Amino acid sequence: MIRINENYTKLKASYLFSDIAKRVAAFAQANPDKPVIRLGIGDVTEPLPSVCTEALKEGAQELANRATFKGYGPEQGYAFLREVIATNDFVARGCAIDADEIFVSDGSKCDCGNIQEIFGSEIRLAIPDPVYPVYVDTNVMAGRTGANVDGRYQGITYLESTQANGYVPAVPGVATDLIYLCFPNNPTGAVATKAQLAEWVAYAKANKAVILFDAAYESYIRDPEIPHSIYEIPGARDVAIEFRASPARAAPSSSSRSR
Amino acid sequence: MIRINENYTKLKASYLFSDIAKRVAAFAQANPDKPVIRLGIGDVTEPLPSVCTEALKEGAQELANRATFKGYGPEQGYAFLREVIATNDFVARGCAIDADEIFVSDGSKCDCGNIQEIFGSEIRLAIPDPVYPVYVDTNVMAGRTGANVDGRYQGITYLESTQANGYVPAVPGVATDLIYLCFPNNPTGAVATKAQLAEWVAYAKANKAVILFDAAYESYIRDPEIPHSIYEIPGARDVAIEFRASPARAAPSSSSRSR
Repeated sequence: MIRINENYTKLKASYLFSDIAKRVAAFAQANPDKPVIRLGIGDVTEPLPSVCTEALKEGAQELANRATFKGYGPEQGYAFLREVIATNDFVARGCAIDADEIFVSDGSKCDCGNIQEIFGSEIRLAIPDPVYPVYVDTNVMAGRTGANVDGRYQGITYLESTQANGYVPAVPGVATDLIYLCFPNNPTGAVATKAQLAEWVAYAKANKAVILFDAAYESYIRDPEIPHSIYEIPGARDVAIEFRASPARAAPSSSSRSR
Repeated sequence: MIRINENYTKLKASYLFSDIAKRVAAFAQANPDKPVIRLGIGDVTEPLPSVCTEALKEGAQELANRATFKGYGPEQGYAFLREVIATNDFVARGCAIDADEIFVSDGSKCDCGNIQEIFGSEIRLAIPDPVYPVYVDTNVMAGRTGANVDGRYQGITYLESTQANGYVPAVPGVATDLIYLCFPNNPTGAVATKAQLAEWVAYAKANKAVILFDAAYESYIRDPEIPHSIYEIPGARDVAIEFRASPARAAPSSSSRSR
């Protein structure tokens, strides 16, 4: 007889965004005349710039002609794209990252869940609170936590992110094996300095731990002192895997660098 | 200390297609003057038809304008797309499938791996041989098999697909819990009749098992007697999850039906 993954029964609030959508739909149906200001899922408010949509159209046209169409790409992503990402997003910021270290996937959200599978099931987790709920939920599904008691899963070291610490948690006093960090943070917007990230890199090295660094929002950083990548921290290459959602860009000009 | 998922060490031939690509690259480099006829990965040979590429361009243009752009879509896929799929791919073939039973994902290959997570880790597998290697490899990674002995993983009931049975395996004599079927088959091209699939549905019901039915190649079916969906079999709704790679199409015309 088929059996379900019993870990799913531990999930408390099903998937946060799905839950919000259901509640909003129910409220809107019960109150059709009331406007709803949605502060839940972070949907975009503006159309794509024409540089993106024109590139999409050119890409579509490329697939229409025998001379230019592409079939399946290489598993790790097109070499030309990986090279541009390595050069402009990393080398330009002083991070020694080669093109063959870049993996172009079907999205940062899938990656957050899928990457876990390469790790053992008995590892100890450190996860900020608050943070993108996918980190916690996917680990619950994978069986790396205990039950949910008073809103928190047993077996996770929660990294308190509060007004008192500027929403940048300090390294914990206990050893953990897999650490999630997200800066600029979803949902607080807090950013970590190089000194703060250096403490996390040192902690990971001391504990032989791995940091999963989610840099999905790095494009919003304006302060030139704030790192865009954890690889700007010496030694991070040894302990960190970084996720990005942003497309490859042109190298930052000197004017934008000195902003 | 971080630990890896030890199940990966059971994987024998890494990922088949990745392995083929490496061998081809090594051969081509060592023999630059020799042409290579590639019979490995099933890449496409022709560009996309203009009906597809024009739709891609129109979609890109839609995202360029404030009046028409879309942000994040619903988690299950756009309602208009799910309705078209339900109507034209299923209801038109006599399968009672509603739009809210369709899930539009980021691809059939990811689905094949990801769907497993909803099932327990102790379930018994039945997998055809030969078949798309992703079914086996993803279950090995998830820890549902034993070691690889003489090219086969312990704990899997292999469904022999040979010239003698027309490459359509009969139901096994032992109980299993999760059954993979792929018709038209990758790689043999064999198709299953309604009578053959009905035996599998009856087997699944008798064993309270689930069938994962991969219909990725259903567009190639020309014989009007061959089912395009396992849901054409009465009772399949109770025991089967179907995967598709093909886009939604217009309903088959009467002329193509009587072909």
